Amino acid sequence: MKLQDIHSPADIKSLSVPELEDVASQIRDALLTKLSRHGGHIGPNLGMVEMSIAMHYVFDLPNDKIVYDVSHQSYVHKMLTGRMDAFVNPEDYDKVTGFTNPKESPTDIFTIGHTSTGVSLAGGLAKARDLRGGTERIVAVVGDGSLSGGEAFEGLDYAATLGSNFIIVVNDNDMSIAENHGGLYENLRQLRESDGNCPTNFFRSLGLDYRYVAYGNDIATLVKAFEDVRDIDHPVVLHICTQKGKGYAPAEADKERFHFGGPFDRATGNPLHISEAPDYGTLTAEYLLGMMKEDPSVVAITAGTPGVIGFTPERRRQAGRQFVDVGIAEQEAVALASGIAKGGGKPFFGVVSSFVQRAYDQLSQDMSINGTPAVIGLFYATICGMNDVTHLGWFDIALISNIPGIVYLAPTCMEEYFAMLGWAMRQQEHPVAIRVPGTAVVQTGRSFPTDYSDIDSYAVAHRGDKVAVIGAGAFFSLGEQVVAGLKEQGVDATLINPRFLSGLDRQLLLELTKDHSVVVTLEDGVLDGGFGEKVARFYGSMPMNVLCYGVRKEFVDGYKYDEILKANRLTSPQIVEDVMRLV
Amino acid sequence: MKLQDIHSPADIKSLSVPELEDVASQIRDALLTKLSRHGGHIGPNLGMVEMSIAMHYVFDLPNDKIVYDVSHQSYVHKMLTGRMDAFVNPEDYDKVTGFTNPKESPTDIFTIGHTSTGVSLAGGLAKARDLRGGTERIVAVVGDGSLSGGEAFEGLDYAATLGSNFIIVVNDNDMSIAENHGGLYENLRQLRESDGNCPTNFFRSLGLDYRYVAYGNDIATLVKAFEDVRDIDHPVVLHICTQKGKGYAPAEADKERFHFGGPFDRATGNPLHISEAPDYGTLTAEYLLGMMKEDPSVVAITAGTPGVIGFTPERRRQAGRQFVDVGIAEQEAVALASGIAKGGGKPFFGVVSSFVQRAYDQLSQDMSINGTPAVIGLFYATICGMNDVTHLGWFDIALISNIPGIVYLAPTCMEEYFAMLGWAMRQQEHPVAIRVPGTAVVQTGRSFPTDYSDIDSYAVAHRGDKVAVIGAGAFFSLGEQVVAGLKEQGVDATLINPRFLSGLDRQLLLELTKDHSVVVTLEDGVLDGGFGEKVARFYGSMPMNVLCYGVRKEFVDGYKYDEILKANRLTSPQIVEDVMRLV
Repeated sequence: MKLQDIHSPADIKSLSVPELEDVASQIRDALLTKLSRHGGHIGPNLGMVEMSIAMHYVFDLPNDKIVYDVSHQSYVHKMLTGRMDAFVNPEDYDKVTGFTNPKESPTDIFTIGHTSTGVSLAGGLAKARDLRGGTERIVAVVGDGSLSGGEAFEGLDYAATLGSNFIIVVNDNDMSIAENHGGLYENLRQLRESDGNCPTNFFRSLGLDYRYVAYGNDIATLVKAFEDVRDIDHPVVLHICTQKGKGYAPAEADKERFHFGGPFDRATGNPLHISEAPDYGTLTAEYLLGMMKEDPSVVAITAGTPGVIGFTPERRRQAGRQFVDVGIAEQEAVALASGIAKGGGKPFFGVVSSFVQRAYDQLSQDMSINGTPAVIGLFYATICGMNDVTHLGWFDIALISNIPGIVYLAPTCMEEYFAMLGWAMRQQEHPVAIRVPGTAVVQTGRSFPTDYSDIDSYAVAHRGDKVAVIGAGAFFSLGEQVVAGLKEQGVDATLINPRFLSGLDRQLLLELTKDHSVVVTLEDGVLDGGFGEKVARFYGSMPMNVLCYGVRKEFVDGYKYDEILKANRLTSPQIVEDVMRLV
Repeated sequence: MKLQDIHSPADIKSLSVPELEDVASQIRDALLTKLSRHGGHIGPNLGMVEMSIAMHYVFDLPNDKIVYDVSHQSYVHKMLTGRMDAFVNPEDYDKVTGFTNPKESPTDIFTIGHTSTGVSLAGGLAKARDLRGGTERIVAVVGDGSLSGGEAFEGLDYAATLGSNFIIVVNDNDMSIAENHGGLYENLRQLRESDGNCPTNFFRSLGLDYRYVAYGNDIATLVKAFEDVRDIDHPVVLHICTQKGKGYAPAEADKERFHFGGPFDRATGNPLHISEAPDYGTLTAEYLLGMMKEDPSVVAITAGTPGVIGFTPERRRQAGRQFVDVGIAEQEAVALASGIAKGGGKPFFGVVSSFVQRAYDQLSQDMSINGTPAVIGLFYATICGMNDVTHLGWFDIALISNIPGIVYLAPTCMEEYFAMLGWAMRQQEHPVAIRVPGTAVVQTGRSFPTDYSDIDSYAVAHRGDKVAVIGAGAFFSLGEQVVAGLKEQGVDATLINPRFLSGLDRQLLLELTKDHSVVVTLEDGVLDGGFGEKVARFYGSMPMNVLCYGVRKEFVDGYKYDEILKANRLTSPQIVEDVMRLV
């Protein structure tokens, strides 16, 4: 059977096992062709080829439900459910998103991009089915690191009480994005080594039935395993071992590099585009490694994404016990950092903006209320970063800056970032978060103060009159453009680098009222709950016009940077136009 | 030895076991005297008397560290560490807070009020010690329901990798606030019934060493158990069985009622003050029970606090499988609700404002991005509610209203609450959160619309001119006072009930510019990131004065309502005074 003839799971249901194996082989080849040209999640999907086929062979979608967690391992599922074109026709490659997407197919139940959610969400489907008296089977596919998140544990703990059909597939590829961490993964290893028979069993300890499948890339084995549990009358964990990167030697050999990546040379596995440009992750890791050598109490912490802060396997080795990967467990990372800071250590937790959302309560309770001088670095915290709806780096300003006590710094360039990071790591008074400016490193060659202990003091970059432009973080450069644009219109505007997102420089703002009638705020995030609104409130009853720029509160998927900037009037000409209407 | 002579743990270190038992007896008596007059966490502390004494006998504080999770079980610890007065002298009863508090004693390491944080925080202390080369022992005391939270799991998972002294005491009293839920607690039962010997062992499955102590209210047993692990060179779980409410028959008999409560008659256990007034929890439970009878897909969900939504044991029995307690696991509660809604059920998750913080990411990712019509009811979401720094009901407006897609409703009284709740449970389009107005039920007898599908449409209660007062939720009544106060000053102000905290009625706000020069916003929460700032931004470049009222962003502990209201100019005379300066 040719891939182009597979339009729905029904098309593979009458095939023999050898025919299914042939389909698997074609799918793997198509995946490699697309991924080598287009990039994406490589290893996770190569490992899921046979399991996806076997699940669709045994279960009946869309009546039965499969919830993928994390859903970056759903490419083969997409190929089998009416979206083959997007994987075999290069012109259609961008027709699907990288995660399950209910807008694409009724077989995709949820949009899922953060890990560890699947058991909880699927458990809800099972509970609803039971209340309705339905008979559909409910499957949750977890793994690839997602078991370490607290939500997954909470989901399993509740699932054990369901008392009805619920199949939890643990896709155990012995990996998270990097290697796995934590005691749980040691138990998974013991289970693998004992063919599922060792007495100590995490899943059974939560009251769940348990079955072990050693050959998770063998279709016949998988079909039997799924058929055996398909109509089970209680929750069961199917622990299935797969090989991440299966069938592609470079990905089998370097699982971490091939977790996710851009286009690569299929013959060698080498990336097609090697950037010579520095990146904030690498620079951060080198900076911290330097600190670690001088101070044994400095610790870098990641929650399963060491690459984000530049900690390659070699740098992890160099850091030794001064590097901690807690697995995908952001709550633990923040609380641990707070505990380390309280105990006299100097922790830096580097995290993707969108993922820090998991730890709001820990930032508030475990860190801020306790005033521990931990340092959190937020990466990809920008409109022009990750554009998947589940990974937007937009919301952190409202999330963090409204928690009392956290000093949220917004450096405008590389030099200021390291000036602020140095201060944050040295000081012992405040919990500090730093919003790493954008994605591409911007070097200005400027020098910056090394002391930021005068909390909420803004820096005036240029003193003009009539109009003041406050450009926060990466948008300071937009502020420079706006000021230049206003200059062309005859307005000598003031330019301010606020440096602090978490509070107002009231004295400076008050001073501006003397000879300014317009204040413009620019922030690289959502307006609602953000920085500009605080400025607007401050001037609420003063004769000052305040124009706030940022993106409006919405969830958008796969947007283009220039379009979203324009739609939110975030270009210099648009802002100059707005301002000139008021002066 | 008399209690008054215990000024520090050193004072009990030379006592014999019988003498320690005498101290325990006196402490229990003093606890009962204070709690029966003053209220507080009753059962948890009665169960912890012997364990607290034994820990202080064996470990050397403040050099060694004990982290209590949740720290409402730290009363006896406080008595033994220089704060006896606050438990034996009625005039000093309020000298200590109800949780560990570093401001009170160097033996209190963290301020902890939310559950499930202790292993993570103490793990950080252990890691810092190892980096420093320190030798102090680190103890985390968890239990009383706190194991069900994902953060506790993440903490245990990481702890297993520490490789140094770390003693995790699991205080197993077979209870959360109500009975325990989830598969994990079934394993704890098996462990209790097998004297810790059953092969299935949750803690061992995470790679942790494990020891079982059956008699957790026996001092000699406890001293030996702690001495055995005091200098251990790796992490160990000490699973200790205690009796919640130990030594006080009414509390032993009704563990749920005596978890926390106000003053009671020591002879009978009966509460001294029985309120005849209705409460929002009870009313909510009765309302939902009514819906459940007509619609089997209606489900009420709690995360370990059924009393908050009025689900007494009897009402839980009535609801049957239409009531779910996931244990203290807010992430699961939100994701489960979202899954149930997606599956065609009608979930209502009732949660304390401060605890919903645990589920920000689930509200965003699992619920809002997926647009599932789940309903979240927020209780004690008010300045005049819980005043412990760890339990402030202030932050939810910024937390929830800045997430795209959630409709956040703010009813002004009981009648409007049920009108909104009815709509929320019927509709199928939006994730909805409802901010239950304050703590005391306010009945107005007014009738309200049953349809709120015209999202962000505000209701004009009175149309005046010059000044418009927008009173959100419970602060609508403050708005009425302000309007009355302005009337006395000759100003016929407009009064608006915004109903929606999550968006602006732009048309109405624009209309106001015709004949209004001042808009006042009143919200029962923190100003930063809140409702008023959105209004201020809207009017940023229009000739409109905007005065925003709410509390400033800060963490305060044990405040008095009238003082904080006054300090934030949240009284009607203050607001009228401010407004009159502008008109």
